[in-house]
Amino acid sequence: MWIISEDIFEPKSQHHKETIFTIGNGYLSTRGAFEEGYPADSRATFVHGMFDRVPIAFTELANATDWLSLIILLNGECFSLDSGTVESYDRHLDLRTGLLIRNVRWRSPSGCVATLKFERFASLEDEHLLCLRCQVEPEFDGTVEVRAGLNGNMDNEGIMHWRRVAQGQRDSIAFLHTRTRATNLDLALAMKVDSDQTPLETAFWDVENFPTLSQTFTVKRSQILSVEKFVGIATSRDTSDPVGMAVEHAGKAINWESAFEAHQQAWAQEWKRADVIIEGDDEAQIAVRFSLFQLLIAAPRHDERVNIGAKTLSGFGYRGHAFWDTEIFMLPVFTYTSPHIARNLLDYRFHTLPAARAKAKENGFEGAWFAWESADTGEEVTPTWVPDFKDKKKLARVWTGDLAIHISADVAYGTYQYWRVTGDDDWFRERGAELILDTASFFGTRAEWIEARNRYEYNDVIGPDEYHDHVNNNAYTNCLAQWNLETAFTVLDWLKVKCPEKLTDLTERLNLTEVRLEKWRKVAANMHLSVKPDGLIEQFDGFFDLKDFKPADYEPRTKSMHEIFGIEAANECQAIKQPDVLMVQYLLHDHYSGEAIRANYNYYNLRTDHTYGSSLGPSIQAIVACMMGYPEDGYEHFVRAARADLRDVRGNAGDGIHGASAGGTWQAVVFGFGGLRLNAEGWKTSPHMPKHWKRLSFKFFQHGKIQVVDIQNPSGAETGNTS
Amino acid sequence: MWIISEDIFEPKSQHHKETIFTIGNGYLSTRGAFEEGYPADSRATFVHGMFDRVPIAFTELANATDWLSLIILLNGECFSLDSGTVESYDRHLDLRTGLLIRNVRWRSPSGCVATLKFERFASLEDEHLLCLRCQVEPEFDGTVEVRAGLNGNMDNEGIMHWRRVAQGQRDSIAFLHTRTRATNLDLALAMKVDSDQTPLETAFWDVENFPTLSQTFTVKRSQILSVEKFVGIATSRDTSDPVGMAVEHAGKAINWESAFEAHQQAWAQEWKRADVIIEGDDEAQIAVRFSLFQLLIAAPRHDERVNIGAKTLSGFGYRGHAFWDTEIFMLPVFTYTSPHIARNLLDYRFHTLPAARAKAKENGFEGAWFAWESADTGEEVTPTWVPDFKDKKKLARVWTGDLAIHISADVAYGTYQYWRVTGDDDWFRERGAELILDTASFFGTRAEWIEARNRYEYNDVIGPDEYHDHVNNNAYTNCLAQWNLETAFTVLDWLKVKCPEKLTDLTERLNLTEVRLEKWRKVAANMHLSVKPDGLIEQFDGFFDLKDFKPADYEPRTKSMHEIFGIEAANECQAIKQPDVLMVQYLLHDHYSGEAIRANYNYYNLRTDHTYGSSLGPSIQAIVACMMGYPEDGYEHFVRAARADLRDVRGNAGDGIHGASAGGTWQAVVFGFGGLRLNAEGWKTSPHMPKHWKRLSFKFFQHGKIQVVDIQNPSGAETGNTS
Repeated sequence: MWIISEDIFEPKSQHHKETIFTIGNGYLSTRGAFEEGYPADSRATFVHGMFDRVPIAFTELANATDWLSLIILLNGECFSLDSGTVESYDRHLDLRTGLLIRNVRWRSPSGCVATLKFERFASLEDEHLLCLRCQVEPEFDGTVEVRAGLNGNMDNEGIMHWRRVAQGQRDSIAFLHTRTRATNLDLALAMKVDSDQTPLETAFWDVENFPTLSQTFTVKRSQILSVEKFVGIATSRDTSDPVGMAVEHAGKAINWESAFEAHQQAWAQEWKRADVIIEGDDEAQIAVRFSLFQLLIAAPRHDERVNIGAKTLSGFGYRGHAFWDTEIFMLPVFTYTSPHIARNLLDYRFHTLPAARAKAKENGFEGAWFAWESADTGEEVTPTWVPDFKDKKKLARVWTGDLAIHISADVAYGTYQYWRVTGDDDWFRERGAELILDTASFFGTRAEWIEARNRYEYNDVIGPDEYHDHVNNNAYTNCLAQWNLETAFTVLDWLKVKCPEKLTDLTERLNLTEVRLEKWRKVAANMHLSVKPDGLIEQFDGFFDLKDFKPADYEPRTKSMHEIFGIEAANECQAIKQPDVLMVQYLLHDHYSGEAIRANYNYYNLRTDHTYGSSLGPSIQAIVACMMGYPEDGYEHFVRAARADLRDVRGNAGDGIHGASAGGTWQAVVFGFGGLRLNAEGWKTSPHMPKHWKRLSFKFFQHGKIQVVDIQNPSGAETGNTS
Repeated sequence: MWIISEDIFEPKSQHHKETIFTIGNGYLSTRGAFEEGYPADSRATFVHGMFDRVPIAFTELANATDWLSLIILLNGECFSLDSGTVESYDRHLDLRTGLLIRNVRWRSPSGCVATLKFERFASLEDEHLLCLRCQVEPEFDGTVEVRAGLNGNMDNEGIMHWRRVAQGQRDSIAFLHTRTRATNLDLALAMKVDSDQTPLETAFWDVENFPTLSQTFTVKRSQILSVEKFVGIATSRDTSDPVGMAVEHAGKAINWESAFEAHQQAWAQEWKRADVIIEGDDEAQIAVRFSLFQLLIAAPRHDERVNIGAKTLSGFGYRGHAFWDTEIFMLPVFTYTSPHIARNLLDYRFHTLPAARAKAKENGFEGAWFAWESADTGEEVTPTWVPDFKDKKKLARVWTGDLAIHISADVAYGTYQYWRVTGDDDWFRERGAELILDTASFFGTRAEWIEARNRYEYNDVIGPDEYHDHVNNNAYTNCLAQWNLETAFTVLDWLKVKCPEKLTDLTERLNLTEVRLEKWRKVAANMHLSVKPDGLIEQFDGFFDLKDFKPADYEPRTKSMHEIFGIEAANECQAIKQPDVLMVQYLLHDHYSGEAIRANYNYYNLRTDHTYGSSLGPSIQAIVACMMGYPEDGYEHFVRAARADLRDVRGNAGDGIHGASAGGTWQAVVFGFGGLRLNAEGWKTSPHMPKHWKRLSFKFFQHGKIQVVDIQNPSGAETGNTS
């Protein structure tokens, strides 16, 4: 169960499939568009950190020079799936190696037939190397012309980000050097084209922004021609000489076999750590591997100044901006299986602390208020206004950048979890502690003391359920902020014992006066939360007074409740986009009794827009169902997460992978069905697996040591053992 | 005085010079960017009617495939002004023929020297033909490679509008066929490259979106190589087979000489009609010819469904949208000198009547309310919001599309003037009358009866002075609306006598009931205008109560008063962007005594932002000064208009020619200094020329007959004679 495949090409789902067949190596990803192009394709390569300015949304990852371009002419006729006849077609992505293969038997308009096999991978061993191979088996005698190019004329859905700096050839390696228009980041790609036959004719077409190497071969029936294109890539974020570096990496690729072998070995190491085995459920098995693959190809291995966007590196959606999706949904996958990657992601937040502090300060608060949408610098890049989807002359205000304050607690949560799981005290001392203390400072000043009600409140916020904005005392926000403040004291206590110099340093730099700490204590101790006697938590002040609403009454539907009701009407009823309260109960599960969790699950489950609401909801819903011992209910929700991209259940997978859903899928398997919980002694599992699952096995690292979980179903709880 | 030239290239003013050296033929214009490119150039070709969608501003003319691209390599070294050494440089635009010539003597980095002469023109004889010639005189023996391309990768300041449809070669003519992304308009360019030597090597580089013909020649010292590039162009607005048409036009160009000869003859005809001779003032002479040239190359000769944008076809400014600038500033030039073009421009308004009626109806009015900014369909394309120039997270509301109702009267005014001057009764009967009657309908319903004040008012409007918005009873708006309503009765009376069937038809179609006509009479008779005893008109209700303000107190300055004060503060004082009241007195000069005009001139002249306010103001100010017999004052204002683009007085000529200023320059000469006025008997001039002008001579058509004016200075008034 390692292969994602299709055996027919459907133009109407080409954007969805481009997303699904994305390959990458943590430095960049390339969507699964065809080498030769196809009308209205959405071909894109996104390189981490290569942001450029854009109207309204401030900044976006600039669609990089297309390295795929390979045009094949059979006796002068241009191969393309939108001409001639496709006699057979199949495409496969091997998740084990990230190799994408396409086989096509094609008949040209004038009747030349050939079978073409395209293969590509982005080397995991050398992240500056991209490899492409095309094998042509002609059923005619004649010529095959191969045009390999580097296309710098790429746009982001109509926005051009590049201007050319230089192009040319060095030692038969062609290169293109471009620069982003506003941010002045340099990008260089260099290509070497090898073939197993001597071309009849070779020409270098030095056309502006699209250097192309054309080679024409004499071919005979059934004699396979193989052409390999090796592309080196580098940016000014890597080196002061991107062209030199790109040429070097293209040049050192010896041949396909050796490059692939090294790449494959690197992937074997990844899967050794990260793989999850599910027996008895092929769909779940492939979905969890697909989710892991998508996260692994988007995850920066050697870069601590980038993060993973909400749509990973696989599409134009959300423009490469990172959200809380990272810390709450994706980060745990890395924290448990690839701590070195998790650390890079948290380092990114550490490096954006200046911007987070500036955002807090501008708004009259202290500490660090992270951007709801974060890109290169960590400045807030949530659009303030977007065109109204109903009337293009109007604008709709986007409030998350102003009101979704929980992001700071989410970053703190991810930081603390990383520390607890990895035991990486060195990193925590140098960077992690500061993240938790300075977000606590933010929550300390953002809280309002309401004299009349004798409590602290967080008013005018947006919680995870974005159907309701400008709410007071959102449960998720209040609980996580409280947790952040309380955890700050745990951190201070630890620093006092383990590294008093660091405590002194932080106390001074972050201005942790006794007055301030006292305020934190008071806010944490007097934070408002409205709880019914049975443990049912009100999502925010007045939620229970809103018009009741159950999505089931509106089935069948193909739109979110938000679209059906409109922004204002959705605000006025109990329909929710995702299970806000259950999120808290998952993240802070030790704080709640089974009974309380059940009360909330039963209430909110009925009122959540599971199908077209947030893609972040289903995995959490699945985990909480398992926590209550309802694995079959959980499975129903799990499937929604697992299918998010593979089956394009929301119809928007073409915009890119739902990274949070991918992370949530893994979490649902490990923490939901597997029931893994770490504790002071080690770990334990309380499995609640769907009946049809025969076996669940996965690994993770605890304090640097690999742990193996292998659960046969039916099985009881296992107690943790360090292997 | 026909040559615009420069003898040094200054990169910092390259965008200004690209605008100045724009060439065109009424079908398209091409900015004066270099054939070989230059870093950060703003190269563009705009073809009439080729609009595509864009965020915020709705639609814009899509920057078309670049036909200029010509790369020259001397012994393999690429010619470019940003490398090597420029030994000499000059550039000339001959306004008489629209031929742009550039001479460069260049030394390559390794020391190869050559003199290159580039020439280009857009054929006025065949508007689907573009011609480019390069002559290279090497000072070395070796090779010269010439790469001629059609570059389809053009963007509008970062926005990509095109996708490729096809490309290739037909009979050694290379073509590129592209399509706008949203509006699906097709564009095809085809090129033929001829040279006076047989190339050593010829190659066709079939690179996506940029087909290129590369030819390498063996050259000897001092032996001139001449290469000619003929480009055919056509769109789906012209034909169902744009590629075939483009190939045909490129193919039928025999050689440079014959193509240029035909083109030159066509220009001779234009100048025979339109030229203005000013003796004794070289600057005025060249400025008026330059203005005429810019208008003539932007004016559609064979297309009645396009208009001239505020920045003509010469830049990205205002995205090709047409404003009142057409009817009030540019149209008179054509009405008097080229009635066939004027008719096309008015036909455009006639064809956009459905959109104008829809706009009126949507807002609860009857008749035709033309778009403030008008593009392909005539729908309102004024942006509603634009990013605030002070804080990019904020948006500024643009009100002109909602409140600048005078546009409908401006269209009616241009229509009536065309009819009076040309006597084109056939056209007026079929189309013109409807324009005046349906705009009257609009003003009939837009007027509010204010019982308390016993009068009709137009409230909540913006007049020509855009420093003040949401004003009541703007003088220009009220007077022009009143004129429009009154003129409607003149039209009805004429129809009744001359073509009663048309009257019946229009009465029915436009619903011209007696009730409605009675309303028009009442509105016209009771329209409010606040006038002081000396004839001073208040620009709008309460204007005289605003804080007084004189721009002179703020000199020297380099910004508009709007920028200095900010939008709100400017609204609250008497600083004005352009002479709103004087505009009325110019357009409706028969309505005002000399004394009244003087009172207004003296008052408003001091309060107008002449230097950085509207580029539309100075020419009107000049005319009104002449009307009062102050030609030297008038000259001071005239010079501001004449220099608007040639000297880039506002620093924004890089965005394109100020079309209204160009039209105003001609009007200032003809109606201001020349004092031309038509009357029932013919015409007369009341010249008020600056002392240093020796002679002023121009022609115009009255009722189809050419009239010649030739004024020696000093001279008295002449009486009209038909030549």
